[in-house]
Amino acid sequence: MPGILVILDGLGGRPTDLEGATCLERASTPVLDALAARGALGLMDPVAPGVRPGSDTAHLSIFGYDPFQVYTGRGAFEALGIGMDVRGGDVCLRANFATVEERDGDLIVLDRRAGRLPDGKPFEEVLNGISLEEFGLELAFRASTEHRGALLLRGEGASAAVTDTDPHEVGARVAEAQAKDGRALRMAEAINAFTRRAHEALRDHPLNRDRERRGEPPANAVLLRGAAVMPHLEPITAEYGIRGACIAGGALYKGVARLAGLAVRDVPGASGDLQTDLGAKARAALSALEGAELVFVHIKGTDNAAHDRNAQAKRAFIERVDREFFAPIASALSWDRVHLCVSGDHTTPPAVGEHTADPVPVLFVGSAVRPDRVRAFGERSAGEGGLGRFSGRLVPQLLGYCDLGPKFGA
Amino acid sequence: MPGILVILDGLGGRPTDLEGATCLERASTPVLDALAARGALGLMDPVAPGVRPGSDTAHLSIFGYDPFQVYTGRGAFEALGIGMDVRGGDVCLRANFATVEERDGDLIVLDRRAGRLPDGKPFEEVLNGISLEEFGLELAFRASTEHRGALLLRGEGASAAVTDTDPHEVGARVAEAQAKDGRALRMAEAINAFTRRAHEALRDHPLNRDRERRGEPPANAVLLRGAAVMPHLEPITAEYGIRGACIAGGALYKGVARLAGLAVRDVPGASGDLQTDLGAKARAALSALEGAELVFVHIKGTDNAAHDRNAQAKRAFIERVDREFFAPIASALSWDRVHLCVSGDHTTPPAVGEHTADPVPVLFVGSAVRPDRVRAFGERSAGEGGLGRFSGRLVPQLLGYCDLGPKFGA
Repeated sequence: MPGILVILDGLGGRPTDLEGATCLERASTPVLDALAARGALGLMDPVAPGVRPGSDTAHLSIFGYDPFQVYTGRGAFEALGIGMDVRGGDVCLRANFATVEERDGDLIVLDRRAGRLPDGKPFEEVLNGISLEEFGLELAFRASTEHRGALLLRGEGASAAVTDTDPHEVGARVAEAQAKDGRALRMAEAINAFTRRAHEALRDHPLNRDRERRGEPPANAVLLRGAAVMPHLEPITAEYGIRGACIAGGALYKGVARLAGLAVRDVPGASGDLQTDLGAKARAALSALEGAELVFVHIKGTDNAAHDRNAQAKRAFIERVDREFFAPIASALSWDRVHLCVSGDHTTPPAVGEHTADPVPVLFVGSAVRPDRVRAFGERSAGEGGLGRFSGRLVPQLLGYCDLGPKFGA
Repeated sequence: MPGILVILDGLGGRPTDLEGATCLERASTPVLDALAARGALGLMDPVAPGVRPGSDTAHLSIFGYDPFQVYTGRGAFEALGIGMDVRGGDVCLRANFATVEERDGDLIVLDRRAGRLPDGKPFEEVLNGISLEEFGLELAFRASTEHRGALLLRGEGASAAVTDTDPHEVGARVAEAQAKDGRALRMAEAINAFTRRAHEALRDHPLNRDRERRGEPPANAVLLRGAAVMPHLEPITAEYGIRGACIAGGALYKGVARLAGLAVRDVPGASGDLQTDLGAKARAALSALEGAELVFVHIKGTDNAAHDRNAQAKRAFIERVDREFFAPIASALSWDRVHLCVSGDHTTPPAVGEHTADPVPVLFVGSAVRPDRVRAFGERSAGEGGLGRFSGRLVPQLLGYCDLGPKFGA
């Protein structure tokens, strides 16, 4: 029997009024409430009680990985988040476009953000044209927002044991990357070669000539920091012997799902924001259930509204999810043929505008789920639910209800 | 926003009557019940379900450390508990004053407790006068109750990989400490030097001459056992970037708090027993909130009464805590400006007179806490509370509600 996991990003909330109700509790969600009446609820600490999770660590934990073991630094997950194809063993570094000046053979940093470059995309091509083949490394560079980007290095010699080239101050020299251990010597050399070659490629770039003509600082160097290796994750699809599908707008969620072995489906209109086409996501989820035992749906808008500190928008988006996503899902599916889990990856109270450590509500529905007395989907009702409180591991629990879990022991 | 954590030692109980009520539930606690009505309750396993915790392991877990990782043996925490200034890397050994006799150059144990020496304090000075400088080690000795004490060794060569000098039987030779690994060779030599020098210093001590004159066995040797290293703990104050304050009577609690980075405040009248001045503790806590984001208050009397197997005294003390501590706290604080957590470090049922593995009730109050329907502070009501059941980690959860937590991930 297949299972479907729906994560509403930043779903959890805090009391917004004197009665203690949250955005979710104030939202009108007749479909989720009917599902709650049929299933069982509980509270999940995404990572552990009192841990304020990032979206990356929370999703690792929800998929059943221990983030304290596998989360090796934000660089690798940031690269996932901007849509790079990061695989286990790849080393990623956070990158800044910067303005430098050559002085006696050194590169001196004049501006760490190249005048807050509005968009580094036009420079991607020349940077991706740089070869580090003599070091046995493949390279990929991607620009993200403004002056930011990420560099990915793949190959035998890739190592995260290297220091930053970013001197973190204006007027200083671009630093030489140093190896932190003997095995990283060639990696440090490769990074220093990249730095020189990037400067050469960017120095004479026509767009930088244009910037200089307009009196703007040229984006003529790439500063690197925070080398982090992507861990080798055992795909849950292999561990469980199943097929998995992911329906998400945001790159990070697609990336984590891909690492976990799920096939990412492109859904036109799934934009990863408040305008996302929820009907298209529901149709894609129903279609994915035809060919996969695990379907993971990620809906981001709840978190966006909460980061914008807009409680009204969060509540309205939850109501739209109930109407446009869960209504078609609930009317198409028969709960003796599929299991459903609905939760969030963390709490984002609009009054805070950031992730907090509070637990999130969880709902399981399906024939294997022992029903409880709770009849509404909300934080406080989940606290009275039959599933109690636990940390992460929604996917293993969902697959367990679906009788897809491997046995640990005999 | 600051947070205050109040631990009533050994608070949890077991049914004391046919109705299943505990001491806490039988106690009249109008202030705690009003706080319960405003906040949310749950049950905590101090370390993990079914683990019968010591006060040391429970407090480590409550502060967010994993006692299975950092609890390296009771010696180091016992030394904390008798008020020694134990720091990360220090090695502590449990010590007994004993009576020995020299025979052919060996020391033969005649009495492992020197006739149950009533007080080893008068011998502290000569023992602290011993130098182990040639081994690169500093030394501190402290007597505790009767014939007991602790030896602390600090320095580059300090190692816990040494065997006991205590032969654990009468008539046997005082053992030579042996190194369990190559790096502990000098440590073993240092301990054997201490043993010889302690014997020389004690042998001719005037108090021992007096004891011999009275026909009492002299306390002329120190037997050592259970070498344990104090782990290097990352102070939570550094991890969270906050200031912390501790208000406690007992040395162990002050010691753990100091390791966690909290500043220990001296409160006259806070005696760590049933006679403690609870009003003084409340005033100290309120004053500490002016200059710290985390205030930890430890109240010991509940556990003392339970170890004395006195259910009536435990109940009466809980009522006094409600009246003399929580009443002034609740009337002084505004719950939109501070978060409060009230719990115990373990269960000590008076009928057992010892720590048991049962979970303990937890109450959180403050604007970030989703209220539940529970309106009384007790073990069974906590089992119906909105926070469910979890293991330890009260301090991370409290600081999470206060929006003081670092983010794990991005």
